[in-house]
Amino acid sequence: MTQPPLPTGPAPRVTLREVAERARVSRTTASFVLSGRRDMRISADAETRVRQAARELNYRPSLLARSLRTNSSQTIGLLSDQIASEMFAGEAVRGALTSALQHEHLLFVGETGGDPEVERSIIQGMLDRGVGGFVHASMYTQVVRIPAVLRRHPVVLMNSYTRGKRLPAVVPDETEAGRSVARELLAKGHRDGIVLVGEHTAQAMAGEDRLAGIREVLAAEGTDLAAVVDTLWWPDHAYRAMSTYLSSVRPTGPTPTAFICLNDRVAFGVYQALAEVGWQVPQDVSVISFDDSDLAAWLRPALTSVAIPYFEMGRRSVELLLAPEPPAVHLVPMPVHLRESVGPPR
Amino acid sequence: MTQPPLPTGPAPRVTLREVAERARVSRTTASFVLSGRRDMRISADAETRVRQAARELNYRPSLLARSLRTNSSQTIGLLSDQIASEMFAGEAVRGALTSALQHEHLLFVGETGGDPEVERSIIQGMLDRGVGGFVHASMYTQVVRIPAVLRRHPVVLMNSYTRGKRLPAVVPDETEAGRSVARELLAKGHRDGIVLVGEHTAQAMAGEDRLAGIREVLAAEGTDLAAVVDTLWWPDHAYRAMSTYLSSVRPTGPTPTAFICLNDRVAFGVYQALAEVGWQVPQDVSVISFDDSDLAAWLRPALTSVAIPYFEMGRRSVELLLAPEPPAVHLVPMPVHLRESVGPPR
Repeated sequence: MTQPPLPTGPAPRVTLREVAERARVSRTTASFVLSGRRDMRISADAETRVRQAARELNYRPSLLARSLRTNSSQTIGLLSDQIASEMFAGEAVRGALTSALQHEHLLFVGETGGDPEVERSIIQGMLDRGVGGFVHASMYTQVVRIPAVLRRHPVVLMNSYTRGKRLPAVVPDETEAGRSVARELLAKGHRDGIVLVGEHTAQAMAGEDRLAGIREVLAAEGTDLAAVVDTLWWPDHAYRAMSTYLSSVRPTGPTPTAFICLNDRVAFGVYQALAEVGWQVPQDVSVISFDDSDLAAWLRPALTSVAIPYFEMGRRSVELLLAPEPPAVHLVPMPVHLRESVGPPR
Repeated sequence: MTQPPLPTGPAPRVTLREVAERARVSRTTASFVLSGRRDMRISADAETRVRQAARELNYRPSLLARSLRTNSSQTIGLLSDQIASEMFAGEAVRGALTSALQHEHLLFVGETGGDPEVERSIIQGMLDRGVGGFVHASMYTQVVRIPAVLRRHPVVLMNSYTRGKRLPAVVPDETEAGRSVARELLAKGHRDGIVLVGEHTAQAMAGEDRLAGIREVLAAEGTDLAAVVDTLWWPDHAYRAMSTYLSSVRPTGPTPTAFICLNDRVAFGVYQALAEVGWQVPQDVSVISFDDSDLAAWLRPALTSVAIPYFEMGRRSVELLLAPEPPAVHLVPMPVHLRESVGPPR
């Protein structure tokens, strides 16, 4: 490594508090604006005031200004099997970047495509460039094998486990999310007409865990799912599976009162199939889902959905990577985002 | 810089052709599978065969295996104002990564939040870690000022221009995309009932350029847009603006025959408003859009939309960065993806 250039003397130390006061916002708001975070709603007006105050006072964020210049080896590698998933990658990378910057690190990003040979080459390339620790991210929750070379370096798994669960891993708490969804429906009066829509077997660990949580809560109330509509987690598959299911529902038989969709894309297809037979949400039937993606807010009526906290997973992965004694498995809570698609049974 | 480790002797040189022959696929298919590219449809079966053949033959991709270990300074920095946009970032980053790896480079990713101070700090941190050139990416097409320090290094702008248009810039060809949309509608018989939906002023350079292309082609046919429904580019705004517009259409007045939506999110809201008044797509009215996002394929009927080639923009940005004499502005074509939402006027 080249020696970093000598620090160019201390900058005038204007504090964040001074910026916040001049901008007439809280210190937290000023910090969020100046660190580029987007996980808190800040008005455009407040943002403008903060940036203007920072400029006028010649404020230099202490972490960034000081550190990136003097710690050229503080570098983290983020390895992902697939960076392009619009659900996962953007927010998770942003969370990891935010935490890395706050801890005076920079971030390499590498996509392996799930190919072990590519993975090994990228890891070696990153090590050659001074990477000191790795976040190993998966698009879908799964059990992974990590290459031997990684075991000689600090590593945190994001959205995956190793078989022995010995490596630190950051995963969403899917089982508790399943419980939350079941409780939400029970609280509204649903009981014996709850139908699950989505494939819940095979690779879909998230589906299995969600189902386990749902069934646990329903069983405690002496009931179970009324039916399972098995479908891949995509709108067109879900639309077709639901259309078939709906045509099999007899007016004289038991009637579904609520559909639990295993993700928002499934819910998208479920809405289309319901619209076609003229069932209104939530008057005729309730719909609840997982993901809390943009889709959930865009559907009419807006969809109640359980959030996957991607930003938080990225952020915590880097936090754990830099922590002295990280826990083996770190479960991230999945909050239910209530909207308009759940009501009492008809 | 530390000296890179000495190469560990040449690997057995199995060629890509041998892998392809064993897997019974074309050389191109084998190359795509092994480089992790996803911009060509490859069957799961073929992919499995290629990976198996590569394992059995102990194939080592020559670029990756050789280079990442021996060229530790070949490093590119990707600076983005906002990494989390699900539309832009994932595919663009993946395109940049693909090209970087093919050219034996690794990629730092940094998010600036649009803050010049953060940007300068990240750039300095990247330079300290050996970054030799930069891709400077914007979420929305815009005129940008780049920091002075960048002008001393190779830099390519992605999705933006500098005022003088002297720096190499990779931008989608929005004007030609507008022409394509207008031609598509004219070819189906639409003429005097074409309505634009979306805000087309202010920051939205893409909107301006698309509108210019549309109007140019319509003017050549002696017509113009029948109306403009001004709305922000979000489903709920578009739904409300369209509902208001549709309630103003009189049975005795001129009737719209086609809606051009300035992105797929707008089209999503337009579909919802049309469904509410019982207008069927494309029997009663055609809809065409820009973005070719997942939404376009998920809507029913599936939406004809012009693709923004994010992967290609990321890929070409790195290609230009490594080219000896890059052109000043590199326009990337935007292909029209035909689906089921455009038909002849009723």
